[in-house]
Amino acid sequence: MAPIRVAVVGMGKIAHDQHLPAIAGNPAFTLAATVSRSDSTVDGVPHFRTLQDLLDHGPDVDAVALCTPPQVRYDLARLALDKGLHVFLEKPPGATVAEVDALAAQAGARGVTLFASWHSRHAAGVAPAKAWLAGRRITGVNVIWREDVRVWHPGQDWIWQPGGLGVFDPGINALSIITHILPDPFFLTEAVLDVPENRAAPIAADLHFRDARGTPIHMDLDWRQTGPQSWDIAVETDGGTLQLSQGGAVLALPGETLRNADEEYPGLYARFAELIAQGQSDADARPLTLVADAFLRGTRRTTDAFFD
Amino acid sequence: MAPIRVAVVGMGKIAHDQHLPAIAGNPAFTLAATVSRSDSTVDGVPHFRTLQDLLDHGPDVDAVALCTPPQVRYDLARLALDKGLHVFLEKPPGATVAEVDALAAQAGARGVTLFASWHSRHAAGVAPAKAWLAGRRITGVNVIWREDVRVWHPGQDWIWQPGGLGVFDPGINALSIITHILPDPFFLTEAVLDVPENRAAPIAADLHFRDARGTPIHMDLDWRQTGPQSWDIAVETDGGTLQLSQGGAVLALPGETLRNADEEYPGLYARFAELIAQGQSDADARPLTLVADAFLRGTRRTTDAFFD
Repeated sequence: MAPIRVAVVGMGKIAHDQHLPAIAGNPAFTLAATVSRSDSTVDGVPHFRTLQDLLDHGPDVDAVALCTPPQVRYDLARLALDKGLHVFLEKPPGATVAEVDALAAQAGARGVTLFASWHSRHAAGVAPAKAWLAGRRITGVNVIWREDVRVWHPGQDWIWQPGGLGVFDPGINALSIITHILPDPFFLTEAVLDVPENRAAPIAADLHFRDARGTPIHMDLDWRQTGPQSWDIAVETDGGTLQLSQGGAVLALPGETLRNADEEYPGLYARFAELIAQGQSDADARPLTLVADAFLRGTRRTTDAFFD
Repeated sequence: MAPIRVAVVGMGKIAHDQHLPAIAGNPAFTLAATVSRSDSTVDGVPHFRTLQDLLDHGPDVDAVALCTPPQVRYDLARLALDKGLHVFLEKPPGATVAEVDALAAQAGARGVTLFASWHSRHAAGVAPAKAWLAGRRITGVNVIWREDVRVWHPGQDWIWQPGGLGVFDPGINALSIITHILPDPFFLTEAVLDVPENRAAPIAADLHFRDARGTPIHMDLDWRQTGPQSWDIAVETDGGTLQLSQGGAVLALPGETLRNADEEYPGLYARFAELIAQGQSDADARPLTLVADAFLRGTRRTTDAFFD
């Protein structure tokens, strides 16, 4: 089968760090074009300022990977789906839940693949964690996701704007893991969001969820962590404690620890190719729904101004 | 067929004004019990302090109508579904989107009916409005929903708490109508929420939505309206303008105006009986999803303190 000709749209940090190497490493894909208002190009690959430019004047493509900020993702996705292209959405898949649902409906109507990607679900420890949890009785979950925003999001103003999610930008990674590995649906019962007085989005959040059995799920998100960073999920069960750390890369089970190489984006592109081959979509918006619920239901507190 | 024995839980204003008369007027139902922490009872009908009390010591019931504030609705619904009872949820169906989805999954697993009711969808003008719009090209929608909170929600503190929705408590009625009558899904693109400095929920909101064709949908919500109240929806089409007013009760089309008696709650109970007879659920959370999206995506402004 001929490789899938993919264009990467939005040539920022995540495109360079993750998408380009993952595409280069997967023979099912070939990088056909890049699109960006900046001059951030790839040698030998046609570059366009806008997606419309690519569609009007560029080489044929089969798919686009949208790596722009979420606030502008819908229009690009809509345009691509209208042209019958398959669409890979970086996380979060949109600035609102309803726009993701609308895209999913459109992809279904056009018969093309929409993939709302959640890279943390492809961290090395996640699949074995899900398998180990299946059939066990879960009694509690604790998530600690604390990182230094100055290290990971330097100067990214969009992330502090309405729709940019603030500390939920990393926090949604944890939600994407636990919605995937926990067998029962869960929902938010209480939340406190700490919002810097000069910003629109939270810098920290304390969240309580429950599943239908009443199992408590606690999440501690903070963007003010200097020194060691924490991306840890602990699941207490009747068979002992499961611990996912380093964002899901390391899995500790009673009596054993599994460490594997990072395969997140290669895993995402393998999944995208599989969805295209099967003529299916995967547009799970649950992590974003839980974040929207936190904004809806949570108590907001104003905290110290934040400057980059 | 024997009437459906229903218990009304949460004997506040909406229960007395709407649920009790609608149940009394529909031979498919019989009021089997009431539940409330208050002494607000119905002559000759057994009364219980809690739903658990009713389940432990009361007469058999087939269904419950939950009229409590949304923040406590999930646990009551969960308990009722666990006992195999059909559940009628007042609007909004929950304090979060994810809890409604979880209840829908549980109702499906138990084989009972969950009905997330939206009373405004049963306003007299709504069904003919939907029929008239089908097949027409819609070019714009404008919603003005302005009322006096002191008249409609006197002393209702829960409505100002996180999860109480503020001005979206009436505004979600407009959303329930337009999600029902507009043929295409739509989503939020911009919102400004005005929040009193002494409250957690907005007193006014200005919202912009679009559908997949780019049709602009504007919504103006305000709880500070004294004098005449406005609950108006105007839909511009290639066949002229449709105007729903008085919350959906009055429909004006080019050349004709339809006025009918208010049948909202009788319509809801007729629908609930039909769903139970068919063994189906109707748990459409889209209006609540759009509100959550407005909290997620919207810009918050602090405005003057509000005192009842």
